[in-house]
Amino acid sequence: MTTQSNTPALIQTLEWSGNAATGHLRLLDQTLLPGETTYLDCRDTQMVHDAIRRLVVRGAPAIGVAAAYGMVLAAQFLPNTHDFHTGIEAAAEYLEGSRPTAVNLSWAARRMFARAQNTLSDDYNYLRSALLDEARKIHAEDQAMCHAIGLHALPLVRRYRGVLTHCNAGALATTGIGTATAGLYLAHQAGHALTVYCDETRPLLQGARLTAWELAQAGLDVVLITDSMAAQVLREGRVQMVIVGADRIAANGDTANKIGTYGLAIAAARHGVPFYVAAPTSTFDLSLPGGESIPIEQRATEEITEGFGRRTAPVNIRAYNPAFDVTPADLITAIVTDRGLISPVNKETVRNTVVPA
Amino acid sequence: MTTQSNTPALIQTLEWSGNAATGHLRLLDQTLLPGETTYLDCRDTQMVHDAIRRLVVRGAPAIGVAAAYGMVLAAQFLPNTHDFHTGIEAAAEYLEGSRPTAVNLSWAARRMFARAQNTLSDDYNYLRSALLDEARKIHAEDQAMCHAIGLHALPLVRRYRGVLTHCNAGALATTGIGTATAGLYLAHQAGHALTVYCDETRPLLQGARLTAWELAQAGLDVVLITDSMAAQVLREGRVQMVIVGADRIAANGDTANKIGTYGLAIAAARHGVPFYVAAPTSTFDLSLPGGESIPIEQRATEEITEGFGRRTAPVNIRAYNPAFDVTPADLITAIVTDRGLISPVNKETVRNTVVPA
Repeated sequence: MTTQSNTPALIQTLEWSGNAATGHLRLLDQTLLPGETTYLDCRDTQMVHDAIRRLVVRGAPAIGVAAAYGMVLAAQFLPNTHDFHTGIEAAAEYLEGSRPTAVNLSWAARRMFARAQNTLSDDYNYLRSALLDEARKIHAEDQAMCHAIGLHALPLVRRYRGVLTHCNAGALATTGIGTATAGLYLAHQAGHALTVYCDETRPLLQGARLTAWELAQAGLDVVLITDSMAAQVLREGRVQMVIVGADRIAANGDTANKIGTYGLAIAAARHGVPFYVAAPTSTFDLSLPGGESIPIEQRATEEITEGFGRRTAPVNIRAYNPAFDVTPADLITAIVTDRGLISPVNKETVRNTVVPA
Repeated sequence: MTTQSNTPALIQTLEWSGNAATGHLRLLDQTLLPGETTYLDCRDTQMVHDAIRRLVVRGAPAIGVAAAYGMVLAAQFLPNTHDFHTGIEAAAEYLEGSRPTAVNLSWAARRMFARAQNTLSDDYNYLRSALLDEARKIHAEDQAMCHAIGLHALPLVRRYRGVLTHCNAGALATTGIGTATAGLYLAHQAGHALTVYCDETRPLLQGARLTAWELAQAGLDVVLITDSMAAQVLREGRVQMVIVGADRIAANGDTANKIGTYGLAIAAARHGVPFYVAAPTSTFDLSLPGGESIPIEQRATEEITEGFGRRTAPVNIRAYNPAFDVTPADLITAIVTDRGLISPVNKETVRNTVVPA
């Protein structure tokens, strides 16, 4: 896959290599960044599932695309066309179980299953090719979606000299120029001078390891801070805008994103700094009325107590490790989608954008 | 030194060993906790200065006591009684320069210098003994101060089942039962069931390494979280009270404390959870009208980029590392001092407690 010609050239998060019958999914192993640039070749669905679970590939849009290709791999192993749809459905459910919060995962898996169901053929190769075609479409749409978000964010970003982001909703979280970062990349490309403050994002340091890395690689001015410094950076006036990604957005605009986002939104509100969420329309889950219904993934406590390859807490200490939190709509200035801005954020404005009349 | 008989037996942060002429200061090396319990013997003022700078001993009250003993060590090296006062003054200034934010450091150093000035003697041994006597007084007062703060905090703590704290304002930050932790220890000792959520406190993890460790050692129920989880823990109602220490408090009650305190105070206010600061009256600096005048220590960026013995950020990335932030008085429910509660927190109520008529 190639990125759109008018977007910055960035490292590929994932790519499909080969044809539908024997090809495989190649993933950049994000657990080893920024120290090592290593790729993992996934040749069956279980490898994709484990890669999503271990955060080899992460970010709501990227894991949607990875899951789509994971279903192409599932099709390579189905014994005959008779069981094809049953097998594809099982693969969809299996992949959806790899991480519970990001809705793009089940969105992509369901879309792949629907394509399988709608492909009326007994030709094995044709069915497989149809699935690869659908996965490639999801992939291409993801790249286009990033670019569209960037175009809608660009006029906002150009107003300011300092922007703060949390976790990684960057190129590495997508297959394009990212969601939260899309407007930053386009502003930089347009010659706008900008400093991006990156929360390191404990426990897994996606901000330090991934966002700071990809932005600096692209030539942007980056300043790394700990999550605990964001309120002070806001108070000092170093940033005039906050922009983050999203893993699932409820019908009323309540937004689940990486743990720490909620506290950041509260701090931004205290300082009158606009707080933006950037996400494709595939991140909305209109079946959930509000944020309280979004499932929050709990992860292993060792991510906190041994998160850096060595123990940094007493043995046998209890820890609590929710991977996400929910930012209520009233703290969100606008949601920047591929179809434009949602602002103010409420049930009506969300519906008007996500389910246009 | 022994702790007061009615307070829990806790590990000694520091102790003076020997007499005024040849004794030395023994420090628990807090940079190695919780993995190793190792002591550092300081035999000259420079060793004390470096130990404070490197955070071998840290916490506003504890570094005040350490600096006092550091001036006893200075007296051991002064060439003659003629230069005694000059030498002591130079030692005070030297030690005050080790860390800029905590006011207890200069408070203790100035008090030691005053004792030297007020000791009218040409007897070398007498002068040295007077300084050791003053340091021991500061030390004993610190222990008594912790206990007094604990007694004032106890009725607050007993109202709740969950308390959140940030950084370490514990026994390890003092020579007694801590400041923020004093009420927690006394409540636990009185049989009150309590869960203490500890922010890990990046970049140096004093919450994970020190607070979680000392509270768990004393038998309290501890849950470790990353700093970014505090807002979510507040939203879930897991804690009903926040209590932290202080490094310097201005005349209007604005409080400098470990970076992250300010964001935590904003989040507590959003949830209507009372936010308490616990500090001895020696932490107030009435020469500063408000928080904007408090000097904020900037520390090496490697604490963020290589904070765990291995690099967790891209090479050559910029970082910003303020060690403290300032929480404005309007976000503080009360300041718990050794002389009672200051509430509401403003210039008048601070003055009434710190400079009683």
